[in-house]
Amino acid sequence: MDDRHEGDHHDIEVEGGALHGFERKISGILDDGSVGFRQPLLARNRKNTTSQIAIVGANTCPIESLDYEIFENDFFKQDWRSRKKIEILQYTFLKWALAFLIGLATGLVGFLNNLGVENIAGFKLLLIGNLMLKEKYFQAFFAFAGCNLILATAAASLCAFIAPAAAGSGIPEVKAYLNGIDAYSILAPSTLFVKIFGSIFGVAAGFVVGKEGPMVHTGACIANLLGQGGSKKYRLTWKWLRFFKNDRDRRDLITCGAAAGVAAAFRAPVGGVLFALEEAASWWRNALLWRTFFTTAVVAVVLRSLIEFCRSGRCGLFGKGGLIMFDVNSGPVLYSTPDLLAIVFLGVIGGVLGSLYNYLVDKVLRTYSIINEKGPRFKIMLVMAVSILSSCCAFGLPWLSQCTPCPIGIEEGKCPSVGRSSIYKSFQCPPNHYNDLSSLLLNTNDDAIRNLFTSRSENEFHISTLAIFFVAVYCLGIITYGIAIPSGLFIPVILAGASYGRLVGRLLGPVSQLDVGLFSLLGAASFLGGTMRMTVSLCVILLELTNNLLMLPLVMLVLLISKTVADCFNRGVYDQIVTMKGLPYMEDHAEPYMRNLVAKDVVSGALISFSRVEKVGVIWQALKMTRHNGFPVIDEPPFTEASELCGIALRSHLLVLLQGKKFSKQRTTFGSQILRSCKARDFGKAGLGKGLKIEDLDLSEEEMEMYVDLHPITNTSPYTVLETLSLAKAAILFRQLGLRHLCVVPKTPGRPPIVGILTRHDFMPEHVLGLYPHIDPLK
Amino acid sequence: MDDRHEGDHHDIEVEGGALHGFERKISGILDDGSVGFRQPLLARNRKNTTSQIAIVGANTCPIESLDYEIFENDFFKQDWRSRKKIEILQYTFLKWALAFLIGLATGLVGFLNNLGVENIAGFKLLLIGNLMLKEKYFQAFFAFAGCNLILATAAASLCAFIAPAAAGSGIPEVKAYLNGIDAYSILAPSTLFVKIFGSIFGVAAGFVVGKEGPMVHTGACIANLLGQGGSKKYRLTWKWLRFFKNDRDRRDLITCGAAAGVAAAFRAPVGGVLFALEEAASWWRNALLWRTFFTTAVVAVVLRSLIEFCRSGRCGLFGKGGLIMFDVNSGPVLYSTPDLLAIVFLGVIGGVLGSLYNYLVDKVLRTYSIINEKGPRFKIMLVMAVSILSSCCAFGLPWLSQCTPCPIGIEEGKCPSVGRSSIYKSFQCPPNHYNDLSSLLLNTNDDAIRNLFTSRSENEFHISTLAIFFVAVYCLGIITYGIAIPSGLFIPVILAGASYGRLVGRLLGPVSQLDVGLFSLLGAASFLGGTMRMTVSLCVILLELTNNLLMLPLVMLVLLISKTVADCFNRGVYDQIVTMKGLPYMEDHAEPYMRNLVAKDVVSGALISFSRVEKVGVIWQALKMTRHNGFPVIDEPPFTEASELCGIALRSHLLVLLQGKKFSKQRTTFGSQILRSCKARDFGKAGLGKGLKIEDLDLSEEEMEMYVDLHPITNTSPYTVLETLSLAKAAILFRQLGLRHLCVVPKTPGRPPIVGILTRHDFMPEHVLGLYPHIDPLK
Repeated sequence: MDDRHEGDHHDIEVEGGALHGFERKISGILDDGSVGFRQPLLARNRKNTTSQIAIVGANTCPIESLDYEIFENDFFKQDWRSRKKIEILQYTFLKWALAFLIGLATGLVGFLNNLGVENIAGFKLLLIGNLMLKEKYFQAFFAFAGCNLILATAAASLCAFIAPAAAGSGIPEVKAYLNGIDAYSILAPSTLFVKIFGSIFGVAAGFVVGKEGPMVHTGACIANLLGQGGSKKYRLTWKWLRFFKNDRDRRDLITCGAAAGVAAAFRAPVGGVLFALEEAASWWRNALLWRTFFTTAVVAVVLRSLIEFCRSGRCGLFGKGGLIMFDVNSGPVLYSTPDLLAIVFLGVIGGVLGSLYNYLVDKVLRTYSIINEKGPRFKIMLVMAVSILSSCCAFGLPWLSQCTPCPIGIEEGKCPSVGRSSIYKSFQCPPNHYNDLSSLLLNTNDDAIRNLFTSRSENEFHISTLAIFFVAVYCLGIITYGIAIPSGLFIPVILAGASYGRLVGRLLGPVSQLDVGLFSLLGAASFLGGTMRMTVSLCVILLELTNNLLMLPLVMLVLLISKTVADCFNRGVYDQIVTMKGLPYMEDHAEPYMRNLVAKDVVSGALISFSRVEKVGVIWQALKMTRHNGFPVIDEPPFTEASELCGIALRSHLLVLLQGKKFSKQRTTFGSQILRSCKARDFGKAGLGKGLKIEDLDLSEEEMEMYVDLHPITNTSPYTVLETLSLAKAAILFRQLGLRHLCVVPKTPGRPPIVGILTRHDFMPEHVLGLYPHIDPLK
Repeated sequence: MDDRHEGDHHDIEVEGGALHGFERKISGILDDGSVGFRQPLLARNRKNTTSQIAIVGANTCPIESLDYEIFENDFFKQDWRSRKKIEILQYTFLKWALAFLIGLATGLVGFLNNLGVENIAGFKLLLIGNLMLKEKYFQAFFAFAGCNLILATAAASLCAFIAPAAAGSGIPEVKAYLNGIDAYSILAPSTLFVKIFGSIFGVAAGFVVGKEGPMVHTGACIANLLGQGGSKKYRLTWKWLRFFKNDRDRRDLITCGAAAGVAAAFRAPVGGVLFALEEAASWWRNALLWRTFFTTAVVAVVLRSLIEFCRSGRCGLFGKGGLIMFDVNSGPVLYSTPDLLAIVFLGVIGGVLGSLYNYLVDKVLRTYSIINEKGPRFKIMLVMAVSILSSCCAFGLPWLSQCTPCPIGIEEGKCPSVGRSSIYKSFQCPPNHYNDLSSLLLNTNDDAIRNLFTSRSENEFHISTLAIFFVAVYCLGIITYGIAIPSGLFIPVILAGASYGRLVGRLLGPVSQLDVGLFSLLGAASFLGGTMRMTVSLCVILLELTNNLLMLPLVMLVLLISKTVADCFNRGVYDQIVTMKGLPYMEDHAEPYMRNLVAKDVVSGALISFSRVEKVGVIWQALKMTRHNGFPVIDEPPFTEASELCGIALRSHLLVLLQGKKFSKQRTTFGSQILRSCKARDFGKAGLGKGLKIEDLDLSEEEMEMYVDLHPITNTSPYTVLETLSLAKAAILFRQLGLRHLCVVPKTPGRPPIVGILTRHDFMPEHVLGLYPHIDPLK
């Protein structure tokens, strides 16, 4: 790109003008809105148009990047070097203790969630079952629809009024947080509360939704709560907890939380670790692998002992295995070439339908977000509408299927069974007959999946039943995702895939000897591969669900085929949702067009820098006028011969420094006094929204005139890149090291020591392609 | 570290003096050994004392770093931009085709290995069995020891004479290669050949060794062979293959090969992927996860069809399951608190014994490497000595154990069985009795493990038998690892752990109701955790081996306990071996002491840089005199106002350029002519040892006087760091981005544009602590 576009961007509309002098107008912003700058204006001054807000759950809110980089200022060095051996041991012990607590809490919540859903849905279906036996069909329908509606409204109002961020599955938000994007409400305690109870009511309300996504978000919220480094409000101020008051340690804890969520939802510990690795986390290292592994092991042991406790019937209508434990026939799986062809066919069609699912979900989400933006009442009305529709389908469709006589030689009371989890539901059929469509629709989702996975010998679904159920579940799943209740995507996709797989199994009956139950499992795998594009973690989750390792190669091949086919059409459902919500997610590879540009081509925004000993007023003015979070600090004469880049100072640290009021009248370096007066702990980073704000400062006029030495809080080891470094390489550096600010330094001597600062927004496609519209995005 | 040690290092002994002029002495080195430098000498000129050689297998050989960084010179930009869509499709298809081929080949080799061992060992044991029946004990011993000796000498001579790099398990070498260290013979075709057949003979020779480590090395060699980008020697010069002629793609293929090796050895596809992730690879991304997953899926399908083929007895003495497929009793595992306590005890002791195992292996390896260095004959003699010792133990020890009557109600011919894989070996016992120690020692390792894992109901080992076997296997395993045959560590560790676990199970019989077979499996897990310090991959491998997911939480807890206990003593066995062999392995975290230093503190070696248009003689002289692989290129007047860093040029590219002989008499820039004359493909990087050498160039005197423009081959986007960046951050940057050269640029203007170049050797503890002995390595 030799011909630099010098003049293409002329509107030098500057955000705040030059900061020559400063007028302290405590009351309001300067009349002419001009904020002086110390640096000569850049030849070309671009504003970064990418939005600083994003949709979190069902709400738009401001977002900020996280500080993962180790901030080596003097406080850090002093604190780090003064850490005694015992403190390091405390820190290590605490890391594992918190991981244990996360596993324990998530396991309990997962069990509670399952217990709640099974009991609420259980009593609801029992009520309807009895009414149907008495052939009071209309009463049964109104009771069914009524119960669903009440539960749905409860979930929706929790979500709409208390924590809108708890709507939807939460996996995209957790994925964005672990990539370095923080929004106030993503992992707030209110979100945690609503996610737990909203998910129980939502799933029990008969929606085609799952609890897996919400469980991941719940695990992450629990981890965030524990990683707050204690809170003064609840007098949790042990010295120990303060070690965790930084984003890096919180990120590790939240990765453990996400893994614990999946482990609790599927009772799949290894699957949970792999999900965190493949889908949730953006950075990975072996130490994190072991800690997540430990957390999911704790979840597995907690769940097992709770299930053991419930086996003796002390937990009400708690189902046999409780958590989904499908036992596909574990006979040795022998397959020949026609079977392999049938499976390839299953994978290809699964991939196509999966990518179609993504496409439709994206469209539905865009329309729903317009409705949701109108306010809480609209959110609730939308939820009620979808609830009524789901109830009508679940109750209405079974009338279309004929009654089938019970298989001979079945145990007494098993067919038709009034109890909850069984394959034979009588619905409107005469005695000794059962309605197979109602055993799928009028059941909890877990039991419907278990019915679909059972082998042919145990039960037989008509082809028409499977077709109706597949279409109903496919459409309901799409229109339900996006309403303002906690809703996971795994179960709808598994339900649709399982019924599609069993349908294909029945159709290819003569061709292949594979059991229909196995076809159903492979169908579910193909849909999961087609929508979520995960492979290893899905494969291990399905294995742990069905406890049958012999099918491993088949499940692997189906997943790979469906993923490859679906990748030709669009991206994974979570990646799509992250982009649609406007979360600035940084991929781990550089886009091809970035190779045509260099670092300085995308540097944007007015560069505000401070000198090493700066006037308090100048700092206050800059913090007030701009939303920058990082400010370069320049060493200038008389402190050094020529002006040199000293490092970067963060807004949060500047605010703490200004609040400390360690100022001096003369412009001299007095860093050591500041070092003694404050403690490194004061600069620990609390969760978003809790730190100091510019409004909290009250500085007198006289203080505004004094000077403060910024050296103690300056990161004297910032990562820098030459302005001529190719943008692709700068993006890889920024992403691999998890930076928040990257300094661009000039190549030719004799110019100001810093050209600009790159933040994650400068690497976003909208910004780069917005600046250079003529570049071909794919080349 | 404010007080810089200015004067502590005074010996300015310079490697080659100043390169003012150049005297072309084609015949030999300059008499006074002085090679002029263009740059003023550094104030302090340190030599990097870390060795450029390392022990690979049983041989020392020179090592070099690999180029993982994308080298953005003009050729790359021209080639990259001219890639048509069809070429990108070809590249993607080829990547998956090569992954398929690696899976296929490794699966076949794994099966062949197993077939070879089962048949050779089978006939050997059959022969001894018959002789024992005829009570010709001495004849039986000499036949046994003789067979073992012949097989051992065959393996040793293959190793000693053809490919010394094939000795040992190979995992440390593959781990080092995937970290960026290349040695000539690590993955050479000769190493592949010797590894396959050496491993068959070695395992069949009755040594206490495994085939898992060699299988990983075999998989990596196969991948390296396919990743050579074709070879002119065998007329494999399709245009397609050339895409792979770079270190990055080869690294991905070799990661797939390593995963395929484990998948073939354990018949554990998901375990293979996780092993590659946790232990082998240093860089990981999702795209690599899917490709390794695909490769191991292919291995699983290949193995399953081959086993199916052999089930009908067409493969000679091929055992029932062939590959180890232990079916621990798959009854539901119920455990109470005493069981958990027993398991915690098992894990702690397993961790201690595991770390002791590492410590002893390290000591034995150091003594053996002194012997091995003396030459091939010493290597073979050492192998023969160990072979004789193993035969004596295997044949001698069973005499110590009493004969046990066969369990009643056993099928006919099953006890004692003359056939190969069974639990009841008669050895010297009267009819209807069996010798339990001989069923462990006089058996292939796979069958011994299967016997140990079987549940109590099927067989009973005396406590004394288990104790003798444990001590024998523990010691033999330690003294066998390090001799010059391909030998894996997994089987010896599993054997020792299984017998230790079963011993503990028998001792704690009254306390816990857990089955002895399960105790044996958990004992093996604790030993594996204690020696190799892997968790998730080991856990999944053990699950896939025993096909029983219900024990997952127990296996997880034992692994975590044993790892934590062992970590207090020393590091994992493979990490220890990598350091002991002198391979400069870069960890993914910075050492604590690095925070006290800055980048320029460790810059070492005389800096040789070229100007953008340089004299051919100067380049030739520098290439001849030094072993540097990267040279900074400086833009100087008259081409720019002030001297500026233009980029880095690689030795391999300089040699290709000089061979092209596109020189010009005047000192002008003629980069575009060079661009047209050479192709990007000429600069493709072949495997080590195959590229051009300085000796291959013959330049006339007149050509030495001409000029060459280096701009087309210069990487104009080098990563640079300020000289004051903390060494810890520089190390993290170097390691995360997989660099080979990192430029250190000055902070204050008005100095030469480059302070020095950092390579992987500059971050090694020996170098850094060597320069600053007073720094506390742990603080």
